[in-house]
Amino acid sequence: MADLVLTTFDWVPETPRGYVRDLRLRWALEEAGLPYRVDSTPFRERKPAHFDHQPFGQVPWLTDGDLSIFESGAILHHLGMRSERVLPTDPHGRNEAIKWLFAALNSVEAASLPWSIFVFSGLTGDTPGWKRLDEFLESRLQHVEPVLAAREWLAGDFSVADIAMADVLRLVDRFDRLENHPACRAYVARATTRPAFVRAHADQMAHFSAAD
Amino acid sequence: MADLVLTTFDWVPETPRGYVRDLRLRWALEEAGLPYRVDSTPFRERKPAHFDHQPFGQVPWLTDGDLSIFESGAILHHLGMRSERVLPTDPHGRNEAIKWLFAALNSVEAASLPWSIFVFSGLTGDTPGWKRLDEFLESRLQHVEPVLAAREWLAGDFSVADIAMADVLRLVDRFDRLENHPACRAYVARATTRPAFVRAHADQMAHFSAAD
Repeated sequence: MADLVLTTFDWVPETPRGYVRDLRLRWALEEAGLPYRVDSTPFRERKPAHFDHQPFGQVPWLTDGDLSIFESGAILHHLGMRSERVLPTDPHGRNEAIKWLFAALNSVEAASLPWSIFVFSGLTGDTPGWKRLDEFLESRLQHVEPVLAAREWLAGDFSVADIAMADVLRLVDRFDRLENHPACRAYVARATTRPAFVRAHADQMAHFSAAD
Repeated sequence: MADLVLTTFDWVPETPRGYVRDLRLRWALEEAGLPYRVDSTPFRERKPAHFDHQPFGQVPWLTDGDLSIFESGAILHHLGMRSERVLPTDPHGRNEAIKWLFAALNSVEAASLPWSIFVFSGLTGDTPGWKRLDEFLESRLQHVEPVLAAREWLAGDFSVADIAMADVLRLVDRFDRLENHPACRAYVARATTRPAFVRAHADQMAHFSAAD
């Protein structure tokens, strides 16, 4: 019996498949070797019980016994506390992993998310707004590039920081925006050939296509 | 002798004063009652040593003995681990605080930051891009509103989650964007009248104006 239950949508449209954030947690759970099962919540009709677990009406959330956790970053943090396979236990390694976990979400994804919203909304024309968002993303990628050129993983061994950072950069790479950032691109390739990622990705794809 | 050293810029222009992110850490340190001192790094000329501590060339960073930590979220997390005055110790309270800390940064600030970049860049005209970013922010505020209407602080007692969330919402409130979200607005007012915030804010203002 798995104590850990990861909840995602029952179905999503084609475009986000392979990129829904439960992927980050499937990946971490596979890396950690923790037993878990996946549950579903309706995509089309979001009920009050959904908001009790995830106040923004999004996915995923994780239950661990009587704890219910939302936010992929918070769940990655929780899984790191449960398994040293995804979070170093020595103070320096742990500090590296936790600061880069926050950096992936609050410095890099804070720039890549609005950028991707403009991409998905067809707002990438020659406007000052699009230019400003693209510059903002570029300013982050420029600083991540030398870091990833100098190390294999962000905190020494592979950790939850890499799951967050690689998943954030993977969406940018989907639109060829890492072309001039070869270390970022190589890092995404390195991370996404890990067996745990491959399993997590295949499982998410199978989960959503089973509902078609 | 303070083990904790918080580094911020030596000077910034008028507009960001009172909103530079060292404020979050000054606030947490004041709430926790931990001794600390503030150090400066040049705003105009960012040297390699700066990037060693903060790879994006921003501020703040905190040193705690031989640990150097960047990202305001990671530093809040670290200070929470050091003081139960800003992070509950029971598993449920701690879970609430950590998930809302990530939510403030990755769900709310990920929407408010691009929105504020458009505001500061004068890109708030009648364009599809601005409309899309404003809708994105609205979609977050709508879900935060009932949460803040139902509780005084996010995790029971005041915690680092409130420092992050109140500071994120405070910038939105600066531009009157909380007008239709009275619980968010009341929460910002409640948080920013705490003596620790008032001291932290006055200290930041004094720090930057001393360099004029």
